[in-house]
Amino acid sequence: MNPVSTPVTLMHAAQALIQSVAIPHAPTLADVFDAAARIAPFAQVTPVLRSASLDALAGCELHFKCENFQRVGAFKFRGACNAVYALPDDSAARGVATHSSGNHGAALALAAKLRGIPAHVVVPANANRVKREAIARHGARIIDCAPTLAARETAVAQVLAETGAQLVHPYADPRVIAGQGTVALELLRQVDGLDALIAPVGGGGLLSGCAIAVRGLSSGTRLWGAEPAGAADAQASLASGRLIEEVVPDTLCDGLRAHLAPITFDFLRGHLEGIALASDEETVAAMRLLWERLKILVEPSSAVALAALLHERGRFAGQRVGVVLTGGNVDLDGLPWKA
Amino acid sequence: MNPVSTPVTLMHAAQALIQSVAIPHAPTLADVFDAAARIAPFAQVTPVLRSASLDALAGCELHFKCENFQRVGAFKFRGACNAVYALPDDSAARGVATHSSGNHGAALALAAKLRGIPAHVVVPANANRVKREAIARHGARIIDCAPTLAARETAVAQVLAETGAQLVHPYADPRVIAGQGTVALELLRQVDGLDALIAPVGGGGLLSGCAIAVRGLSSGTRLWGAEPAGAADAQASLASGRLIEEVVPDTLCDGLRAHLAPITFDFLRGHLEGIALASDEETVAAMRLLWERLKILVEPSSAVALAALLHERGRFAGQRVGVVLTGGNVDLDGLPWKA
Repeated sequence: MNPVSTPVTLMHAAQALIQSVAIPHAPTLADVFDAAARIAPFAQVTPVLRSASLDALAGCELHFKCENFQRVGAFKFRGACNAVYALPDDSAARGVATHSSGNHGAALALAAKLRGIPAHVVVPANANRVKREAIARHGARIIDCAPTLAARETAVAQVLAETGAQLVHPYADPRVIAGQGTVALELLRQVDGLDALIAPVGGGGLLSGCAIAVRGLSSGTRLWGAEPAGAADAQASLASGRLIEEVVPDTLCDGLRAHLAPITFDFLRGHLEGIALASDEETVAAMRLLWERLKILVEPSSAVALAALLHERGRFAGQRVGVVLTGGNVDLDGLPWKA
Repeated sequence: MNPVSTPVTLMHAAQALIQSVAIPHAPTLADVFDAAARIAPFAQVTPVLRSASLDALAGCELHFKCENFQRVGAFKFRGACNAVYALPDDSAARGVATHSSGNHGAALALAAKLRGIPAHVVVPANANRVKREAIARHGARIIDCAPTLAARETAVAQVLAETGAQLVHPYADPRVIAGQGTVALELLRQVDGLDALIAPVGGGGLLSGCAIAVRGLSSGTRLWGAEPAGAADAQASLASGRLIEEVVPDTLCDGLRAHLAPITFDFLRGHLEGIALASDEETVAAMRLLWERLKILVEPSSAVALAALLHERGRFAGQRVGVVLTGGNVDLDGLPWKA
């Protein structure tokens, strides 16, 4: 659809709708445990990898939680699967919808396919080709839109109005946040005594879910966000104490261009040790290191976690650190070190 | 050293030396178990990965044994580590030597470093840059030579004469074969009821070791070799019943350019279901599939196993198949699909 032709009333309706789901009840540790049980039949328990040479480079003990091995190649499957399977049958039958530039869309498509219900995914024109193909491969209906948040939200509102589908927002949704929290739940079971945990932050769903699990189960573990320096709205928001939405993202980390929502902002205030930044150049270097040393594919939005940690390595010296590698969906015809 | 200036007497000495170790006693299942115990403190137990989409493509159930996650990024560490730690102290103190275009050299270098003894590695001029750097990074002394088998063997003989080091041949060595057999030993413990196991064949050390384990522990599992069509000396040797050494390899699978030795030829005669071939084009396509679907780095010499299986997929229909992914050392600046 072309957002220019969207009636103003529909845009207002869209905004009201998004707002209405954007500040829902805050998920708890019990919700994370429920999510873990709900997604267990479908999701992978992902491995934790180590590298002696990366430990030496970082000056600390790194435990990489490899969500690139998760279904659809990203942690996003956890939250989407939890949201889809938490729906009552009658509501589920009308399907689910979202807007996504990539991994969340593919994750929702697969979760819906597994449950046998329709999925409608609004995809902006600048989405990564590989991620777009994954959304289609998992059987979702794709609705194209212009690459702006307003266009995305308007298009979603129209889909919801037409289909009666349930919105499953990529991060401003308690079911999604609880699902993403199972990443930390699993990691805390796999590795004892983590001094710190660092995870990328875009909209903040993963980091909020991790905050719930860490606060409830391992209060000695300091939680860090990792953010591209070119999309540092979360750092700015937490530093200023108010939700900053004016940042125009400029980063190749295509999964981290969103800004915090009210629910994730509220979660992260007071629960983070800090947000470490990395330039895209540092992120590309870290991505290459991860490929060469761990022999795995990770996307730039994952590598930012190692890049930011290395940037702030003095803060992690000698510690046992969990590093969430969020996904591995990259276009092998467009690797950043070939550009 | 320049092989042109090598005295004829030294070449004869080299050939006699190589022959003397090329037909040693045949390793047994007990040797594979001994190797597993010997290398356990040093080697990784590598994971087995699955992919629903690759299963659908192949029409069978694929269990990928991921030796790209082994130390130095290749199964070669198993054999080298077994050989190094099997040496008595007095002999070990004089060091070890080999010739290798890559992974075996790095593996021997690391094993020697772990034991605290010197390693000398003869490296042909056409060796993969990344593999050459790994040999150096693990502390071995590198001796350059021309890219012919004669030059390699002559250079090794000179090193042995000068240093008193023990030769650890890349595959014509019972300690190495027994070590490589631990790949199959581990996989048979990880996956029940394999109908078939397919592994790449170059010099035949891995496949010979796997033959010992499969024959001894899972006689219902059919063993397949996978070989580049441009270096199909093993297929020709087994078909003709005599060791064929005249094939001039023409393949990008840099780990599979060697030909069988007498010991590996004897092992594989009568113990293989067959050798499946793949063109380099098929191997590159399979490599890309493995990267995209499993989110792991594998080198062409690994991907040939999937490529050959897909080429002969009618022979594997509906079966449970183990596929050995032998290594993940690739030059990220020279990926084959960018050529």
